[in-house]
Amino acid sequence: MINRRRFVGSLAYGVCTAASSRAAAPRIDGGIIRSQIEALSVFGRLPGGTFQDGVSRVGYSDADIAGRKYVMDLMRRAGASVRIDAAGNIFASRSGSDPSLKPVLFGSHIDSVPNGGNFDGDLGSLSAVAILQLLHDLNTTTRRPLTAVVWACEEASFSGVALNGSRLAAGKAAPGELAVVSRGMAKAEAIRRIGGDPDHVERALIPKDSYHAYVELHIEQGGTLERDGVAAGVVDGIVSIDDYNVVVTGFANHAGTTPMAQRQDALVAASMLTLAVREIVTAEPGAQVGTVGHIDVSPNATNVIPGEVRMTVELRDLSSAKIARLGERVRARGAAIATETRTKIEMKLAGHNESAGAAPEVQLVIESAASRLGLATKHLPSGAGHDAQMMATLMPMGMIFVPSVAGISHSPKELTHWQDCTNGANVLLETVLELASK
Amino acid sequence: MINRRRFVGSLAYGVCTAASSRAAAPRIDGGIIRSQIEALSVFGRLPGGTFQDGVSRVGYSDADIAGRKYVMDLMRRAGASVRIDAAGNIFASRSGSDPSLKPVLFGSHIDSVPNGGNFDGDLGSLSAVAILQLLHDLNTTTRRPLTAVVWACEEASFSGVALNGSRLAAGKAAPGELAVVSRGMAKAEAIRRIGGDPDHVERALIPKDSYHAYVELHIEQGGTLERDGVAAGVVDGIVSIDDYNVVVTGFANHAGTTPMAQRQDALVAASMLTLAVREIVTAEPGAQVGTVGHIDVSPNATNVIPGEVRMTVELRDLSSAKIARLGERVRARGAAIATETRTKIEMKLAGHNESAGAAPEVQLVIESAASRLGLATKHLPSGAGHDAQMMATLMPMGMIFVPSVAGISHSPKELTHWQDCTNGANVLLETVLELASK
Repeated sequence: MINRRRFVGSLAYGVCTAASSRAAAPRIDGGIIRSQIEALSVFGRLPGGTFQDGVSRVGYSDADIAGRKYVMDLMRRAGASVRIDAAGNIFASRSGSDPSLKPVLFGSHIDSVPNGGNFDGDLGSLSAVAILQLLHDLNTTTRRPLTAVVWACEEASFSGVALNGSRLAAGKAAPGELAVVSRGMAKAEAIRRIGGDPDHVERALIPKDSYHAYVELHIEQGGTLERDGVAAGVVDGIVSIDDYNVVVTGFANHAGTTPMAQRQDALVAASMLTLAVREIVTAEPGAQVGTVGHIDVSPNATNVIPGEVRMTVELRDLSSAKIARLGERVRARGAAIATETRTKIEMKLAGHNESAGAAPEVQLVIESAASRLGLATKHLPSGAGHDAQMMATLMPMGMIFVPSVAGISHSPKELTHWQDCTNGANVLLETVLELASK
Repeated sequence: MINRRRFVGSLAYGVCTAASSRAAAPRIDGGIIRSQIEALSVFGRLPGGTFQDGVSRVGYSDADIAGRKYVMDLMRRAGASVRIDAAGNIFASRSGSDPSLKPVLFGSHIDSVPNGGNFDGDLGSLSAVAILQLLHDLNTTTRRPLTAVVWACEEASFSGVALNGSRLAAGKAAPGELAVVSRGMAKAEAIRRIGGDPDHVERALIPKDSYHAYVELHIEQGGTLERDGVAAGVVDGIVSIDDYNVVVTGFANHAGTTPMAQRQDALVAASMLTLAVREIVTAEPGAQVGTVGHIDVSPNATNVIPGEVRMTVELRDLSSAKIARLGERVRARGAAIATETRTKIEMKLAGHNESAGAAPEVQLVIESAASRLGLATKHLPSGAGHDAQMMATLMPMGMIFVPSVAGISHSPKELTHWQDCTNGANVLLETVLELASK
C-alpha cells in the first residue's frame, strides 16, 4: 500500500515576485477550481438537471460555444491575450521576462461526449486558466512566456473522429476532412461556428519545436490511481490503438428446422471470437486491453440463425509491436473458429493510432513537482487518446493524471474528488513554473 | 443409406369412377404442379427478377391479393364451390357421395416472408387445388366431401405474429388483435382488404370435429430428408417453442482506460451465454434446437465496453417438458456467468407455443400412401410452426414433408426439386383419397 499524502489547498498565496524564487510557493485555491468547474457545467446541462446529471457539451454545439465564451472571459480577466486559431483552438498567452525563449504550452479541452461528465477536459482547461489568474493576481512574471490552450472538439462526437482541433494544429488532417458532414453540417461550417477559419486551416499549424513543452492535466478515466491510493499519475505515454473490423459469415436459416449439427451460426462464431479476444489479451502480463465494443447481427431475428455478424476488435498498449502480435493471435484464433463453426471470418485492420511517448525530462519535472507537494506518484500509460498525443509530435510532452472514482468516465457518474482536482491543478502549476523557469 | 425410389409422375390418369376402387390409381401430373407454382411466383416477384430470385408475397399485400385471385380462379375452374371466411381464409369445397359424412380438409398458405422462396406454402396449396382439378377431370366423386383451404397470412409478416388466418379459425385470437397496426394498417383493415369480414370474425371459427381430418403438404425447411435420401417425411408433430428475453447488465466504461480485470463487460457475458445455449442443447440426444438469433448491444461503440446486452434465447422440441428443463439449465448457467463476469443476467419467458401432435391414425394413412407410391418415409418433428398446429386443436391432423435442398427456406435459395414436389402432391392425393373413402 502506497502512502498517499494529500495536499491541502491553501487560501493564502505566498508572496513572490518571480517564479524562479519560490521560497513560499504560490498555490491554486481549490475553491476556485471547484466553482469554475461548477460554473462551466451549466453549459450543456440537461434541462432541470444538476451537476450530478452530467453534461452534453458536444464540440461545435451551442453549448460548446457558450462554454468557450465563459472560458475566454476568464482568460481575459486573467490579463491574457486571447486568440482563436484557424482550427477553432483557443490560445491565451502571457508574456515572460525573456521574450527570446519559447513559451510553455499547457491546457486541455472543454467539449464532452453526449451524456458525459464534468471533469474530462474541464479540469485541465480550468486549471490552466487558474494558473494565468494566479500569476496575474500575484503580479508574477515567469522567465518563459506561458500559453494556456483549450483544444476544439477533442471527443469523437463529430463524424466519429477525435482530437479535431489538436490534430489540425499538428497537420494531421485527413484528405477532405473539412467537407465531412456530421450532425447536419460540414466540419468546415462547424469550425467557422466556433470562430475558426476553415478556408485557411493551414494557419492553425504549430511549427515543430515552437514551444518549449506541452503539459496536460487530465482525469485518469481508469481506476488505477484510486485503487492504488495515488494522488498523481505520471503518464509514460499514450497507448497505440489497433482497430479491426471483423465480418463473420455463416448461413441464415430457419431456427426451428435446422438441426444443431447443420448450422453455420455466425453469432456462435462471433461469441467464440469475443471470448478469444479477452483470453488472448489477458494471457500475458502488462497493461494491454482488448475490447469487442460493437456488434451487428443479421438478420437479427429471434427465429433465424444469424447469417452474418459485423464486429470490432480494439487492442491498446503502449507498445505497437505488442498489439500487432496480439492482433495476429486473434486472427489465427479466428481462422480456427471459422473452421470449427463452418463460417468465414475476415479481419481487417481499420485504423492504427501510433503511441505517443511522454518526454522523460517532462516526466521528471512532474514527479519532482508532485514530490514538493507531498503527493505520491505512479507511472502509468494513458489508455485513452488525448490532445497531448498530437502535441508529442511537435514538442516534448507530459501528462498529469488524477484519480477517477471507480474509473468511471464518459458518463454522468464521472467523478474526481475536489481535493484530487486541487492537487492536480497544483502539480500542473508547479510543473509549468519549473518548466518556465529554465 | 435408405434406398430412395422416386415415383415418376404419370400423364395417363387411370380410369376410375370412385376413389374407393382405385385399381389404376389417379396421379397428379408433375408438369401441372410445376407450371402452377411458376405461374403463382410472378405475384410478388422482384421487378425484373426471375423465379430464382424468390418472392415477396407478404400476407394482406397487393401481391397476396393477386395470388389469391389466381388460386381462386383455379379452384373455380376445378368445379369447386369457393368462399372466403370472415378471417380471409379461402375454402374450396367439393361434394362427396355421402353428404352425411364430415369432409376432409387439406391445404396450406400462399403468403411468403419478405424475400422468401416459391415453395413454402405454395406447394401444399397448389397440390390441394390440383387434387380438386384431377377429380373434376376424372369426374370422380369421393365418399366424403373434400375441402381445400388456403390460410390467410401464415407467416409472421404482420406485427410479427404468425398463423393469422388459421389461428382466428381456431378461436385463438389475442385480445385486441384486430386493432393492432402493422405496415400502416390495422389488422381488421388488412383482413377486409383480402375479402374477410373483421366485424364478424367469430364467424370464421371452425367448430371442433366438424371435419374428418386435416392434412397439409409442406416443404421440410430443414435438411433431414435430403441428407437421409428420403422422399416423404411423416410429421410426428409440431414442436413446442419457448422464447426467452435476456437482459445482461454490465457497466459501460472507457475501452482504453479500464483494465481487463476491472471490467463488467455485458458482451463477454452474453457471448458465454450464447455458447452455453448451444452446449446445453446439444448435451443430450434428440432433435431439440436452441438459438440466440437476436442481440442488441448498448452503447455499441468501438471504444466503449458494452454496458448492456438484450438478447433472445429460443428453444424448440416436441416435448414442452424437455425445453422447460433446458431453459432452466440455461438460466442456471446464466446465474453462474453473471457471478463470474460481475454482471446481472435476467431471463424472462416471453412466449410459449404448445406442441401439436399429429394424429397417429393420419400418420398411418400417410405412411401407407407413400408406401403405395414406392417412396421411402421417415418420421420427424416439424421444427417450424404451421397452420396444421391450429387445426390439431380441432381435428385429427397430419403433415407430409418433402425435401428442401440444403435445408434452406425463407430465402430466394429455397428449393424443392420438381420430382419431390410431384411425389409430395401424390402422397397428399393418396392420403386424401384414403381418408375420404372411409
